[in-house]
Amino acid sequence: MAKRPLILITNDDGISSKGISALTEAVLDLGDIHVVAPDSPQSGMGHAVTIGEILRIKSAYFPIKGVTAHSTSGTPVDCVKLAIYKILGRKPDLILSGINHGSNSSINVIYSGTMSAAVEGAVESINAIGFSLLDHDANADFSNAKKVVRQMTMEVLKRGLPHGVCLNVNIPKTSEGEKLKGIKVCRQAAGYWEDGFDERKAPNKESYFWLTGEFTNPDKGEDTDEYALSQGYASVVPTQFDLTAHHAISELNSWGLT
Amino acid sequence: MAKRPLILITNDDGISSKGISALTEAVLDLGDIHVVAPDSPQSGMGHAVTIGEILRIKSAYFPIKGVTAHSTSGTPVDCVKLAIYKILGRKPDLILSGINHGSNSSINVIYSGTMSAAVEGAVESINAIGFSLLDHDANADFSNAKKVVRQMTMEVLKRGLPHGVCLNVNIPKTSEGEKLKGIKVCRQAAGYWEDGFDERKAPNKESYFWLTGEFTNPDKGEDTDEYALSQGYASVVPTQFDLTAHHAISELNSWGLT
Repeated sequence: MAKRPLILITNDDGISSKGISALTEAVLDLGDIHVVAPDSPQSGMGHAVTIGEILRIKSAYFPIKGVTAHSTSGTPVDCVKLAIYKILGRKPDLILSGINHGSNSSINVIYSGTMSAAVEGAVESINAIGFSLLDHDANADFSNAKKVVRQMTMEVLKRGLPHGVCLNVNIPKTSEGEKLKGIKVCRQAAGYWEDGFDERKAPNKESYFWLTGEFTNPDKGEDTDEYALSQGYASVVPTQFDLTAHHAISELNSWGLT
Repeated sequence: MAKRPLILITNDDGISSKGISALTEAVLDLGDIHVVAPDSPQSGMGHAVTIGEILRIKSAYFPIKGVTAHSTSGTPVDCVKLAIYKILGRKPDLILSGINHGSNSSINVIYSGTMSAAVEGAVESINAIGFSLLDHDANADFSNAKKVVRQMTMEVLKRGLPHGVCLNVNIPKTSEGEKLKGIKVCRQAAGYWEDGFDERKAPNKESYFWLTGEFTNPDKGEDTDEYALSQGYASVVPTQFDLTAHHAISELNSWGLT
């Protein structure tokens, strides 16, 4: 690319999280960086968009020199839409989302605001990558994750992605000084959440509930993201927005619906 | 099925919308019906789940006799999780979501709370169908839609769905007395939204924005949901939660990532 690429950075943990700073540092010299991220945590927002409420955009402080940043009152997907159609006034060359504090492997991809921002990039025909570290700690160590971010970003800037596809990159938690085994291309493991709800009583005696749950993965395939992560590899899953179960079309046609 | 099936009904327009009553009426004699729906509109919430806030459940009035109903403060996906793990105490035999006031064809499937509730059913290995009528009017005429709801519900109760697959059913708007041409099994059209934002000024002179936009469909395939709907057919798209772009794995493997 002759010109420096325009790179949009967003996330779902909010503009003040450590993960979005780590992501920005890792790619600072690879393009012109513009951060547009939620002004507050938006984890678990999936592909939500704000259609019945107003949105606000504010010029924001960002702790890395030379980076233009805006925060918005919206979801991660709103941030991508606001960035393209209002703040940047054009499509960026690349969208990077994260680094998420916590895994977005397996079924978590559909609940994740971080990954939905990347998927929205694919919808808009923009190369996009979502990054997540398997560590929820607000002060998590992103040093290995930053290396993966830089490598994957350079690859995607050089090669591009197939049309309609973005990448879901997860990085295992490592102890200090421990290196990753490498990077593996995977499919999404068929895991799910065994949900639970913690019931509490408000002072007025009304019940309220907190979503809890246990991630469960019966899918032992060695080609899955869960397997790669369990073996110390970063996982890369090509991820799409076409939800059609193409393999089921012929079965449904055999029903003879009219 | 020897026993009457337990049918969970939800939506994203909220428990007081006409669409969820129409859906319930259409299937009233086909099983034991339990409605668990958002207490307020949740359109565009995608696959959002409430993880940082509390959830409330209330016993709710529902205008159809013999139907037990609860409203929740959560998203459509929260409603499914609360229904299974807290209200019903077991997995229902079938989840029906809708009837949505407005289309969920093409790319709208990923923004739709109605469809995300159905997709959550598939994640939980429960047969699930989302229904949408191409009419946003609060008083829309659901008479043709109800026939489709009844037919598809009976088919799915009889045959079941392939594992990991739910159905996205859209019904065209018809004028009074006009009949549907029929039902077609389709793939999701590769359309997208050309977004825009309407800028306004608050009394304090600060700007705020409303998301607007125009649905654009360059995909003229006659096997798409958009095509079927344009020809007066209801569209049925088998829909999955596996977002892996399986066709892109070999290309990514050729990158030689290590």
